[in-house]
Amino acid sequence: MKLLVVGSVAFDAIETPFGKTDKILGGAATYISIASSVLGVESGIVSVVGGDFPQTDLDMLSGRGVNIEGIEIIKEGKTFFWSGKYHNDLNSRDTLVTEVNVLENFDPKIPESMQDAEILLLGNLHPGVQLSVLEKMHNRPKLVILDTMNFWMDSALDILMQMIAKTDVISINDEEARQLSGEYSLVKAAQKIHAMGPQFVIIKKGEHGALLFHEGKIFAIPALPLEEVYDPTGAGDTFAGGFASYLAKKEDFSFETMKSALIVGSAMASFTVEKFGTQRLEEVTETEMIERINSFKELTTFEVNV
Amino acid sequence: MKLLVVGSVAFDAIETPFGKTDKILGGAATYISIASSVLGVESGIVSVVGGDFPQTDLDMLSGRGVNIEGIEIIKEGKTFFWSGKYHNDLNSRDTLVTEVNVLENFDPKIPESMQDAEILLLGNLHPGVQLSVLEKMHNRPKLVILDTMNFWMDSALDILMQMIAKTDVISINDEEARQLSGEYSLVKAAQKIHAMGPQFVIIKKGEHGALLFHEGKIFAIPALPLEEVYDPTGAGDTFAGGFASYLAKKEDFSFETMKSALIVGSAMASFTVEKFGTQRLEEVTETEMIERINSFKELTTFEVNV
Repeated sequence: MKLLVVGSVAFDAIETPFGKTDKILGGAATYISIASSVLGVESGIVSVVGGDFPQTDLDMLSGRGVNIEGIEIIKEGKTFFWSGKYHNDLNSRDTLVTEVNVLENFDPKIPESMQDAEILLLGNLHPGVQLSVLEKMHNRPKLVILDTMNFWMDSALDILMQMIAKTDVISINDEEARQLSGEYSLVKAAQKIHAMGPQFVIIKKGEHGALLFHEGKIFAIPALPLEEVYDPTGAGDTFAGGFASYLAKKEDFSFETMKSALIVGSAMASFTVEKFGTQRLEEVTETEMIERINSFKELTTFEVNV
Repeated sequence: MKLLVVGSVAFDAIETPFGKTDKILGGAATYISIASSVLGVESGIVSVVGGDFPQTDLDMLSGRGVNIEGIEIIKEGKTFFWSGKYHNDLNSRDTLVTEVNVLENFDPKIPESMQDAEILLLGNLHPGVQLSVLEKMHNRPKLVILDTMNFWMDSALDILMQMIAKTDVISINDEEARQLSGEYSLVKAAQKIHAMGPQFVIIKKGEHGALLFHEGKIFAIPALPLEEVYDPTGAGDTFAGGFASYLAKKEDFSFETMKSALIVGSAMASFTVEKFGTQRLEEVTETEMIERINSFKELTTFEVNV
């Protein structure tokens, strides 16, 4: 097992200017592990679902080579459910429903088969739960990647700071980086977040791409300009999944490899937004993925001789 | 004469979170031509100032090799003056004072020495004035670059559309591209703007970089992440100046050269914002400029092998 993913496996109901869905498969760990499988990287999920979670979805994941041994099923419980409506610009959304359900008392249990994971990717969850995962690992994984959000900065900052101190790579968006650091300049924000623990700071800027900071060095990528974004749900998780899986595949955590991993994550995320939910990501072939990565090269490559 | 610049030569009084200035040298044509001189490209300005405009500023420009024969001085008039205050995030600003003065009845006169310009860069002015310049050229320049803004979309759309139809390269920001096209997706917006005339569409995104669209191809660059932006005034003009001057230097208007020109423009603009007004841009050495361009390469270069 290369990559251990701890995060939600859930239901989403989504409305965008292009349409709406009933309850469909969602959750950070779901997007992350599907992205891993596209890259041919073995991942395992630690999560919890209710008795209402369809066997077909579990079968889909294990059919893709995802280890689902760590997905606890609480028969009498209900699966986490989120419903949201995106505004016309798709950059902002209103949450309509959040039913935390079985995630309320989530006590992650790490199967023995997953104890040897080299990379631990902690999807957005209560930082106390994220910390408990790290404590339950027999050995610290070589790389700990943390995804979090402003909600935990508002409600559980102390324990979040403890979690961040134990993190190698943190992935947050620009507004969250500003909130966490109290700095408007993202360069200064990254410096302050470095000082909290992580050697690598990824700042996601949605349609404007992402920045990677490490020891005074900066790498910047644009997002692939798309004619339409149908549904941004899961894009950040897919990005994290592609990023972590590329590192797992290369077994190298240098700045140079992280740069490539950022491209792979962005390429994967550009698929996710093309259809609702996990639909498009599930269809991606290796050829398509390579083409998409080449598009990034074309998008950003230049020569200058002044 | 390689590059003919038509635009304001003016006074600005600027307030940012880092300080404030009295009336200092400003204006689109000023920034553009200083950028040209840094790149060693001969430019000429067509503009108008009042009797209050200091000879020292004119001397500074001609000392840099800028042809100032086309800067009309209306002795009894006053120079255009703008005063603005930037908000804390430096992404938005309030205009405190706009005194149009001699620019109100600006009737551009193109000296014979500038009639052979290969590139015409039309800085942000009333589109009627921009059109009149094109009519006054004996021969159409090889490349017409247009800068404009939402103000003219609101107040003079018909004549702006006539001007856009005669433009090769249009440079506008993301919000303006959306307003002009009625499309939120910048890819779709660029398609619609192509259909209005320009073969090349540059969409500026401030701190998020810029996009270049041409015949279905896209090139994207990030802005150089800076610790502090002291004063964004003139950044867009400097960008346009660096862009146009690089093309003038290379005497080539292919997509590949335009890509490089975008990098050069961004590199130049990254200097302008480091101090108030034209101060930093005036100090830039060739070595610094080459270093800055190399920083862009480091910022964006990657290798991926999936």
